Amino acid sequence: MFNNSQIGGVFMKVIVVGGVAGGATAAARLRRISEKTEIVVFERGKYVSFANCGLPYYIGGEIKEREKLLVQTVEGMSKRFAMDIRNETEVTSINRNTKTVTAVHLPTGKEYTESYDKLLLSPGARPVIPPIPGLKESENLFTLRNIPDTDQINGWIEERKPAQAVIVGGGFIGLEMAENLYACGMDVTIVEMADQIMAPLDKEMASIVENRVRDFAELYLNDGVKEFRQKGNKIILSSGKELSSDLTILSIGVTPENKLAEQAGLALGERGGIIVDEYLQTDDPYIYAVGDAVETIDYILQKPVVVPLAWPANRQGRIVADTISGKPAAYPGTLGTAIAKVFDLTAASAGKNEKQLREAGINYKAVHIHPLSHAGYYPGAEQISMKLLFDPGQGTILGVQAVGKEGVDKRVDVISTAIRGNLTVFDLQEIELSYAPPYSSAKDPVNMLGYAASHVAEEEIDVVHAWEINKRIEAGEMLVDVRTPEEFKKGSVPGAVNIDLDSLRERLADFPKDKPVNITCQVGLRGYIAVRILKENGIEARNLSGGYKTYSELFRSQEMNALFI
Amino acid sequence: MFNNSQIGGVFMKVIVVGGVAGGATAAARLRRISEKTEIVVFERGKYVSFANCGLPYYIGGEIKEREKLLVQTVEGMSKRFAMDIRNETEVTSINRNTKTVTAVHLPTGKEYTESYDKLLLSPGARPVIPPIPGLKESENLFTLRNIPDTDQINGWIEERKPAQAVIVGGGFIGLEMAENLYACGMDVTIVEMADQIMAPLDKEMASIVENRVRDFAELYLNDGVKEFRQKGNKIILSSGKELSSDLTILSIGVTPENKLAEQAGLALGERGGIIVDEYLQTDDPYIYAVGDAVETIDYILQKPVVVPLAWPANRQGRIVADTISGKPAAYPGTLGTAIAKVFDLTAASAGKNEKQLREAGINYKAVHIHPLSHAGYYPGAEQISMKLLFDPGQGTILGVQAVGKEGVDKRVDVISTAIRGNLTVFDLQEIELSYAPPYSSAKDPVNMLGYAASHVAEEEIDVVHAWEINKRIEAGEMLVDVRTPEEFKKGSVPGAVNIDLDSLRERLADFPKDKPVNITCQVGLRGYIAVRILKENGIEARNLSGGYKTYSELFRSQEMNALFI
Repeated sequence: MFNNSQIGGVFMKVIVVGGVAGGATAAARLRRISEKTEIVVFERGKYVSFANCGLPYYIGGEIKEREKLLVQTVEGMSKRFAMDIRNETEVTSINRNTKTVTAVHLPTGKEYTESYDKLLLSPGARPVIPPIPGLKESENLFTLRNIPDTDQINGWIEERKPAQAVIVGGGFIGLEMAENLYACGMDVTIVEMADQIMAPLDKEMASIVENRVRDFAELYLNDGVKEFRQKGNKIILSSGKELSSDLTILSIGVTPENKLAEQAGLALGERGGIIVDEYLQTDDPYIYAVGDAVETIDYILQKPVVVPLAWPANRQGRIVADTISGKPAAYPGTLGTAIAKVFDLTAASAGKNEKQLREAGINYKAVHIHPLSHAGYYPGAEQISMKLLFDPGQGTILGVQAVGKEGVDKRVDVISTAIRGNLTVFDLQEIELSYAPPYSSAKDPVNMLGYAASHVAEEEIDVVHAWEINKRIEAGEMLVDVRTPEEFKKGSVPGAVNIDLDSLRERLADFPKDKPVNITCQVGLRGYIAVRILKENGIEARNLSGGYKTYSELFRSQEMNALFI
Repeated sequence: MFNNSQIGGVFMKVIVVGGVAGGATAAARLRRISEKTEIVVFERGKYVSFANCGLPYYIGGEIKEREKLLVQTVEGMSKRFAMDIRNETEVTSINRNTKTVTAVHLPTGKEYTESYDKLLLSPGARPVIPPIPGLKESENLFTLRNIPDTDQINGWIEERKPAQAVIVGGGFIGLEMAENLYACGMDVTIVEMADQIMAPLDKEMASIVENRVRDFAELYLNDGVKEFRQKGNKIILSSGKELSSDLTILSIGVTPENKLAEQAGLALGERGGIIVDEYLQTDDPYIYAVGDAVETIDYILQKPVVVPLAWPANRQGRIVADTISGKPAAYPGTLGTAIAKVFDLTAASAGKNEKQLREAGINYKAVHIHPLSHAGYYPGAEQISMKLLFDPGQGTILGVQAVGKEGVDKRVDVISTAIRGNLTVFDLQEIELSYAPPYSSAKDPVNMLGYAASHVAEEEIDVVHAWEINKRIEAGEMLVDVRTPEEFKKGSVPGAVNIDLDSLRERLADFPKDKPVNITCQVGLRGYIAVRILKENGIEARNLSGGYKTYSELFRSQEMNALFI
């Protein structure tokens, strides 16, 4: 089965560069496959296999003990997996002709070479640090990638007791840091250059998170840092606004740690990722690469992509060990399933978002729903806002986004699984999910999303979206809100007229027959029934996808943002 | 698309018998498809579309307001969906020749006939009531299926303030009632005739629940009610044991409500379910049936089965409306995904269990794992005990069971989805699930289950099970516990010897080479590494599936039960 552990009668020697995530996983798997393979792991840092995703929570105090971050120690891992781990040792060059690497033991500066039969690169990624004036002089500026970074931030917090924190970058790690610095008692400001936080979400979904984040932190969208002044204590934004900061976290993204690969002449992609084939082999047949440093294939678009996430790194580490050991295992591409806790919300996504699909020129439709996480009559049910993107012809699922509290992770995981199983939006209706009142409803939110998308795919109804409804009203189209008058009074889309769903059949004469009518309700469900009634009565109608909930979240975020400009 | 709404120029008239779950869903969908179909719903009870799965929680006080149980009212549903709902009206016969039903308005006794073009039966199920002596004279004995049952139980509790409750039947509803009567302050005793509670689980998985249930209630397994005495206040068990009861819930199962169908001469299956084809059509082309009353196909075994669960009823109701309206929609069979909250545990399953696979003569293998619900270094992670059943040749997933707290529902739902997507145990390794420390690990429990099963399917390791290990030790085989001496001292399988995993390579000489060695650890993970080390060193070894955790839960339950006999 595994036939490579001996090469010409001699046992194979594998060098792994990078002892965290993908590298650590690969090394352990290599040993489990064979007791004979010689395994040498070089790790530049002091620690191997640490919990990088846990670092923000250790800073925030949610994780109390530092040693919890150390999933494996050098000693423990060396012993258990009979491997030669050389931490604090940096591989400075790869000599492909001689199949050796040059390494430097950082504490002593001692340099030496080590030979390999197979070389695995798992160097990870490094934070993007743009050339902003005053950045280098900023003493209170940190990035967060590893345990020394964490120790530095904690040291700064302990020593300086910062009151004002600024997070540059509204991505997943930036938001996790915002939550955790808020938990430390700081006033937190987030600065994001794009018009939304959390790039994997589309704007109307990110808006839900933005509206909640603003309950805890200041949020500046469409704005960036122009200059750091006073050793970083003053931050000048592109808009001209000035911020005070006692502690600044720079988290605008990461870029592949590709220096070693580049120097060795390995092929790199446009985004700097090491190019590998489906077996994670570089263009040198003796060198493999995994994790944040590589360019893989996007599972949906089948195009090159760099995805610095833990799941792909671990999976790639696992299967590359099989391949190296002579049982080739292909990596089918990355779906990019991602999740983050943002204060009391959870936001998750998988596959492509609308921005990416539009850019890729892919034909798609979108639906939004806001079902409850479990049966409404059982206590604790929370609304989950979900968006599904799909090909309206075949029903192929292209992407999912969800924001809420309980059960967000479950629904995104179910849909990720559905995508891997080539299930369509029609199939989502049929997935038999576990139901008892504390967990779900007899029609699970995933089923509901399948129904909503199928209705559109099968042209039972057509939808209109929150970001286009104002224009349609301006163009003279009618928007009817079919909620009760009590609900309508509390707020609706400007220009909407109110006709309660339950009196719709008596009010058919009020509808124009010559142009389409737009319908809204709270979350889209009553709107769907209304559209069906109208269509069956010869009136062309479309449903506002996600109803007033999606509309109001989007416009609330835009209005709030306008206040800051 | 929907071409049946007119029949010979006249709009179709559909009669639905039963206005809960499947019937209510079908009626609403019929209306959403067409405004013209005439829809008459007969419901024997006072209420339509009530929350039957919520009833135990209303009794226990978790659900506070009675009206929350009424998902739809007769008035509200009639108005919204323009349908003729006749509650408190029982259909007493179907006259297939004339395509009419005879109905009786129960409050007045008025009988009349009503014609149909298509008839949909959704009569549900009724509790099994065995002919136990003294049962009819028991004043404190209740079953729970609907709102009047609930009102009766609540009335009894209010009036009599019962201190001792007995639940007959350790199925899902029995256990939900045990939890809720315990919440009302009662001393609860559960009597179950089988050797385990929760039939969809296998014994070693049910044991985990049994061991927890015993912290809250008395549990008698392998025992049944022989006689009720003193108007039900005394219960004599088959074992001779006597119980006192102030309130008894009989929940030993339900049987299809098939009287109407039987009288009409419709074909019934062995278990009494109305036989329908994949389009939910009975053997009368004008009569359809859905829900607890029908016999459907088991998705895994492709054999007839009666599954009284809410999800299939609702799904069938939905698609039968499409079929009746001229767009045939097939029901692919029932996976039987089920879940229950049992005190502070969650137990869930999908597909077939080991008992059923053995009975069906299907070749399978089983693996057990006990991963944490999310990253161990983030607070609140809870162990989930999982079992996967699969075909070792193709890797086809045959069934899953899980018991734990957080995240049980998610993992069973993901695997249900994988089954629907024809994903194998090999594919489970590859499902890209959302990971951040509060939600999962970089290898999700589902991935871990895929790895564990793939190792067995690909013969990387062989497993031995908790229920067979004692016999193997008796037969002279060695069992080595590779946990630390500290862990070993706290308890292990009788007869096990302790060799710490991390000193295994130095102790290879202690292992016999002529016969297989069994390995155990806490949950099976270190055992897997140990087996790999031994195999690669020429020693035949097997891993105890689920480790000491599975073993100890199984034997603890068996020991506890022996105490009661």
